[in-house]
Amino acid sequence: MKTLRGRVQGGIGLAAILLGFAPVVWAADPNGAATLAATPTAPVDYVWVLLCGFLVFFMQAGFAMVETGFCRAKNATNLMAKNTIDFVVASLCFMAFGFALMMGQDYKGLFGTTGWFLHGDSYDVGRYLLFFWQLVFAGTAATIVSGAVAERLKFSAYFLYSLVVSALIYPLYGHWVWGGGWLAKLPFGAGHVDFAGSGVVHTIGGFVGLAGAILLGPRFGKFAKDGKPRAIPGHSITLAALGTFILWFGWFGFNPGSTFSAHQLRIAVVAVNTNLAAAAGAATAILVVFARTKKWDVGMMLNGCLAGLVAITAPCAWVEAWAAVVIGIVAGFLVVASVYFWEAKGVDDPVGAVSVHAVNGVWGLLSVGLFADGTYGLATTSAPLVRGLFYGGGFGQLIAQAIGAAVCVTWAFGLGLLTFKIMDKLFGIRVAPEEELKGLDIPEHGTPAYPNFVTLNQ
Amino acid sequence: MKTLRGRVQGGIGLAAILLGFAPVVWAADPNGAATLAATPTAPVDYVWVLLCGFLVFFMQAGFAMVETGFCRAKNATNLMAKNTIDFVVASLCFMAFGFALMMGQDYKGLFGTTGWFLHGDSYDVGRYLLFFWQLVFAGTAATIVSGAVAERLKFSAYFLYSLVVSALIYPLYGHWVWGGGWLAKLPFGAGHVDFAGSGVVHTIGGFVGLAGAILLGPRFGKFAKDGKPRAIPGHSITLAALGTFILWFGWFGFNPGSTFSAHQLRIAVVAVNTNLAAAAGAATAILVVFARTKKWDVGMMLNGCLAGLVAITAPCAWVEAWAAVVIGIVAGFLVVASVYFWEAKGVDDPVGAVSVHAVNGVWGLLSVGLFADGTYGLATTSAPLVRGLFYGGGFGQLIAQAIGAAVCVTWAFGLGLLTFKIMDKLFGIRVAPEEELKGLDIPEHGTPAYPNFVTLNQ
Amino acid sequence: MKTLRGRVQGGIGLAAILLGFAPVVWAADPNGAATLAATPTAPVDYVWVLLCGFLVFFMQAGFAMVETGFCRAKNATNLMAKNTIDFVVASLCFMAFGFALMMGQDYKGLFGTTGWFLHGDSYDVGRYLLFFWQLVFAGTAATIVSGAVAERLKFSAYFLYSLVVSALIYPLYGHWVWGGGWLAKLPFGAGHVDFAGSGVVHTIGGFVGLAGAILLGPRFGKFAKDGKPRAIPGHSITLAALGTFILWFGWFGFNPGSTFSAHQLRIAVVAVNTNLAAAAGAATAILVVFARTKKWDVGMMLNGCLAGLVAITAPCAWVEAWAAVVIGIVAGFLVVASVYFWEAKGVDDPVGAVSVHAVNGVWGLLSVGLFADGTYGLATTSAPLVRGLFYGGGFGQLIAQAIGAAVCVTWAFGLGLLTFKIMDKLFGIRVAPEEELKGLDIPEHGTPAYPNFVTLNQ
Repeated sequence: MKTLRGRVQGGIGLAAILLGFAPVVWAADPNGAATLAATPTAPVDYVWVLLCGFLVFFMQAGFAMVETGFCRAKNATNLMAKNTIDFVVASLCFMAFGFALMMGQDYKGLFGTTGWFLHGDSYDVGRYLLFFWQLVFAGTAATIVSGAVAERLKFSAYFLYSLVVSALIYPLYGHWVWGGGWLAKLPFGAGHVDFAGSGVVHTIGGFVGLAGAILLGPRFGKFAKDGKPRAIPGHSITLAALGTFILWFGWFGFNPGSTFSAHQLRIAVVAVNTNLAAAAGAATAILVVFARTKKWDVGMMLNGCLAGLVAITAPCAWVEAWAAVVIGIVAGFLVVASVYFWEAKGVDDPVGAVSVHAVNGVWGLLSVGLFADGTYGLATTSAPLVRGLFYGGGFGQLIAQAIGAAVCVTWAFGLGLLTFKIMDKLFGIRVAPEEELKGLDIPEHGTPAYPNFVTLNQ
Repeated sequence: MKTLRGRVQGGIGLAAILLGFAPVVWAADPNGAATLAATPTAPVDYVWVLLCGFLVFFMQAGFAMVETGFCRAKNATNLMAKNTIDFVVASLCFMAFGFALMMGQDYKGLFGTTGWFLHGDSYDVGRYLLFFWQLVFAGTAATIVSGAVAERLKFSAYFLYSLVVSALIYPLYGHWVWGGGWLAKLPFGAGHVDFAGSGVVHTIGGFVGLAGAILLGPRFGKFAKDGKPRAIPGHSITLAALGTFILWFGWFGFNPGSTFSAHQLRIAVVAVNTNLAAAAGAATAILVVFARTKKWDVGMMLNGCLAGLVAITAPCAWVEAWAAVVIGIVAGFLVVASVYFWEAKGVDDPVGAVSVHAVNGVWGLLSVGLFADGTYGLATTSAPLVRGLFYGGGFGQLIAQAIGAAVCVTWAFGLGLLTFKIMDKLFGIRVAPEEELKGLDIPEHGTPAYPNFVTLNQ
Repeated sequence: MKTLRGRVQGGIGLAAILLGFAPVVWAADPNGAATLAATPTAPVDYVWVLLCGFLVFFMQAGFAMVETGFCRAKNATNLMAKNTIDFVVASLCFMAFGFALMMGQDYKGLFGTTGWFLHGDSYDVGRYLLFFWQLVFAGTAATIVSGAVAERLKFSAYFLYSLVVSALIYPLYGHWVWGGGWLAKLPFGAGHVDFAGSGVVHTIGGFVGLAGAILLGPRFGKFAKDGKPRAIPGHSITLAALGTFILWFGWFGFNPGSTFSAHQLRIAVVAVNTNLAAAAGAATAILVVFARTKKWDVGMMLNGCLAGLVAITAPCAWVEAWAAVVIGIVAGFLVVASVYFWEAKGVDDPVGAVSVHAVNGVWGLLSVGLFADGTYGLATTSAPLVRGLFYGGGFGQLIAQAIGAAVCVTWAFGLGLLTFKIMDKLFGIRVAPEEELKGLDIPEHGTPAYPNFVTLNQ
């Protein structure tokens, strides 16, 4: 039995597992010959999942470019350091602890218990494949935070926080939704579903970031004495745009790859929906701001694009093209409104990470309950198809989505506050005022980012 | 019958359709289970087409970097805005109108008539796949123009023009060649053929750009009082080179992916040819300019590389490696000659888009009629093999290519002139002189690209 | 027989060939129909190898960004020119000579003898596939050198050297390991093995670079009068980080793609190991330097990441996850120690190419002899499994690895010295002192990289 279960991993079986069903006892098949013999069609699934995973990895470069582009030149080295170290730490911690907690043998729907350090039955080609896929997602959740806490968080605090997110916050919530945990089994609709991680990745990352931004307080100069927000322009719109293109590109791995199987031809629909929501979000955001200011605001367009991508991440496999456009349009409105809202509340989020990821992650989760069209299930299993309110599915799915979103927000924001608070008590998470004014690059790293250029310290 | 036709879409069938045969009535198969059952080998084709399509999408980032690198810092925000908005507009307009006009049920060889807003039978995994593929090509055609009209076209005009290209100019011509239209059925050779779009994408984009560049007139300072051209150096050779690498990378999706099927193992030949032409074009251009000026001109090498890529796009699947090298060498000469030619004519094309795309697109189309080696057809169908003059095919194919090229140039240049002319009458397409001198970033967008750097307003 | 051998190329056969077995007489099958008929599962292998090859190509962009980021603004145009021309030259020379020498019909284990200019039996889809794969590797070996000789080597010398590496140095050594040559047949362990090229690509490139750096001597200002090294900071940490991310991304093609077959499901293990070594190398390097200087050194972290990637390249398919972490940790230490070592020796390697590629290439080769776990062979053939010292394999494999490494170092360093020496005698390889001080961009290329920015000539 154990062997048999292990052998099905090459094909459709994995999709079922990943999407929340039947955590499996794996057989050890480190060279893959047994898997190939049992599932001769496995290679195309491996190719699909790996190449999509490589694209998701590349999103790290996208985040790095977007964030540094929207921040100042004096903190560029620091942002490069943070955007690299988070994936480094995630790789090692998720291998050691996170993966076992998230995808190991389930304990009462709460957490996984096997596969620490990729040991035991884990030395298996299918298990490594699943690890790789989950790892690049964990790394994405970790890196989202860096934008919200940019230009004032100590590097050492960032180092430690990355560890907590990738070893604990992300994998536990991930287990509840994707690892066979309790949220996937909610008795409403098809249970709480999140196709590619609007909640698991983006809402988690975004709300941890919000916690950090609130605890840190705003950057010097962000708010005038009277509390009025002031724009602190980023040092390279070019790099911000490059980063957005890289993220958009990487998202084509993120969403379509989340079928975890090339035998789900629905991947074509997922790719189209992902793109349409991005476009609709970008168009909406730039037009909304133009209507207010008569300027074509590039920064807002880029964030509108990302907002559309975040929002479509949960529903991407379950909705039609027109719905993807609508979801993107709403995301475009939401991101603009949210940026103004948090500024008005005195929260300083230098790159708009909270508005893009936290707010639109929640919107993405809810949108499944509205637009899921009932033509596609959780895999080509006997799993129930997902159907939302507008397609005659009633309120069941919407309720499951709302519960999951509430849990996600509470978990991420709560543990985010706790993590940053403890670190702050222990050693202080914000750099010294003179370091912040000077920029973090030299005090923290000894290396200015652009020593050959004459720069302004703004 | 309808169902059967729909079901063949997973495999070889699609390649036939895309390459100009037999527009199909599609069955609705939104989750792909029926397609998979009918064509169990479909997954690898879907994986191939989607991943290549993602690479083509990523070319948007390449164009953005090349164009901004070759233009001045004071217009970088504007170029990022344009290079993003064109794909945003293309995504939405091509979904609404373009795709139906291009790939819908054919009406007398002139245009398609079904699939508006991806509706009706379009809710099908194969149909979404075809839409995605065609969309990333439409977006490429749209973005090519931006280089030729850079640093002086209003953003609003760019916004509207993108709409016209992606909803009308590109899809109609595309229908004639790839959608079962009249050019594919010319009674010469195998009909007009264009494997991956030297004509459909690059000549179209390049000649619309030429129309724009002519109507706009040159930038201030491009020509001295006596008409002598002056170099206006771009603000970042680094970004221009990065963009070229990204385009080269993306072209490996563009050309090999245009088999629309992984079951055409010719994809290996296509990849090799694509690369050789790029290399030959780059080497030729840099050596030609070195012979004249004794300087190793990087900008010209990068454009030589792109010229080789554009030229090999039409013939890539039908020629041998040595021919790809020859085609690239000719492209390298052509791009240098063309840059000098248009400058001498008083046309200001800031990034060389006309010389790269318009001129070499035509050369690519013609080269099929010379070098096609007769070993590969339009699919593994009963379609005639493509054979050019140098391989004993006589003048038939060359005539078909020349006719197609003439139609392409006339159509693109004509409609380009018309579109820009109408917009110019209605609201003026060129920014005010003081805005151009100051740079478009602040007047149009309110956001300088590099506020932390001390820049020169050149 | 000939035909039969040619027909097996689609699947597992190629992996065997590439990994050092049985050079094959190819049948000409230019459209792939015969190959597909004989091996209906070939498409997924072609898709895998091509897409991974595209990723390897994209590493050219990564090298360009890392090297320019770590060098000064006044040489950025020159670095872009070099990083482009090497791949251009490699493409043409490897097609003309290199490929035949490396993968042609073997002559006494020393070199190949067929396939010049991709002629003869080479017009075959499988042959083109193999050419493409080997080409992108040859291009990588060529480009590694550019970092070590940056900021002082003449462009013309670089042009010629690229030719020698891609037509001679790389393909001959490559033949000995991957083309059926004598090193693969050493009577120790499984013969000398190098899964993805720690030796064939990185040690070769790194030691040729070392030869160049030694012959050129250090840049002006690198060493004080008393011989003490001085830091010459690079002009963009942002681009260096972007380049590292691109290289990391591309390495997912480099290593997993080196199975040359998607039917080796071990690709999942390879991807995981590649990532873990990169992370471990980065973490180690930044922590080691922090312990010394109390600064979080981003440059060293990026080089630590690359060092881990170089080191894991040879063993990636043969080791477990924990071993990949250990290999990466050692690489992190080695790269830091090596940077200090060469500086102390008076060798000026502006971007650390020698420490990353030469030193860790050797470490990667040796690590196979220690950590190979005996669960995976050279293909799914009857080839012996690879087993190292720590897994009960005795010293055999370690000896084979040490011999190969010694040959690799001698060959690369020796021919590197010879090549640069001959060129230096003929026309001088170093630019004039005043050109070096001014920066190479204007004297060699006539084009400053950043003309709109106010820069410091440091």
